[in-house]
Amino acid sequence: MDDNNSIFPKGEKASAAVFTGTAYVNMLVPDKDSVYNCQVYDVVFEAGARNNWHKHPGGQLLLVTAGKGYYQERGKEARLLRPSDVVAIPPGVEHWHGAAPDSEFTHIGISPNTQKGGPEWLGPVTDEEYTEAAR
Amino acid sequence: MDDNNSIFPKGEKASAAVFTGTAYVNMLVPDKDSVYNCQVYDVVFEAGARNNWHKHPGGQLLLVTAGKGYYQERGKEARLLRPSDVVAIPPGVEHWHGAAPDSEFTHIGISPNTQKGGPEWLGPVTDEEYTEAAR
Repeated sequence: MDDNNSIFPKGEKASAAVFTGTAYVNMLVPDKDSVYNCQVYDVVFEAGARNNWHKHPGGQLLLVTAGKGYYQERGKEARLLRPSDVVAIPPGVEHWHGAAPDSEFTHIGISPNTQKGGPEWLGPVTDEEYTEAAR
Repeated sequence: MDDNNSIFPKGEKASAAVFTGTAYVNMLVPDKDSVYNCQVYDVVFEAGARNNWHKHPGGQLLLVTAGKGYYQERGKEARLLRPSDVVAIPPGVEHWHGAAPDSEFTHIGISPNTQKGGPEWLGPVTDEEYTEAAR
């Protein structure tokens, strides 16, 4: 247990191609052989970090375990997230998630139905979009 | 956060039909409409509690978040589980999981591929089997 009360060790640095700021992804269940049609990962976002807009053909599930962050769907108000919050993101819904400006943020992510394909990455969440979300 | 460092509130008491001892199941993602083909739940086992032998046609994934417990597949040695341990249980493999005799135990459970059907419950883990596993 570190200060952030994380359960899983920090993983690899997330790709700068699809994240703004610094985040770490620990792939807990890579499911390389597609036995489960499901990938599970722990993501730690440093304060201010977020992923790009993206969508999943099979949907995505988030379980918040530490810190403070945001989830936003395209065209909607951002939702503040705290530990024990659960987000169910339907297939094809454009969204992003990430830390608050003043706090780390950790969630477990679950990508079910991976037989339907991987995430489709879109453009970055701009500073203007992020500032508006976290206001 | 309680003493057991749980993230999610305790859910409903687990069914005595398929558990020995007291456990609580918090259904985080019930997926009643089968949008995700995936159910997610947090299970808190009191010391000594365990579920019956069972198997899942789509497999099951466990993420240990607190306490000390065991996972055992039929015919194999039990595996001691601690926070941050991950268990990937292939489809059709008979197994049980539960707390150590002297510790609570909490895991997140993920049932992927629910389109293949729900768990098949088998007989209880006998006191003899449990004592041998936790030895």
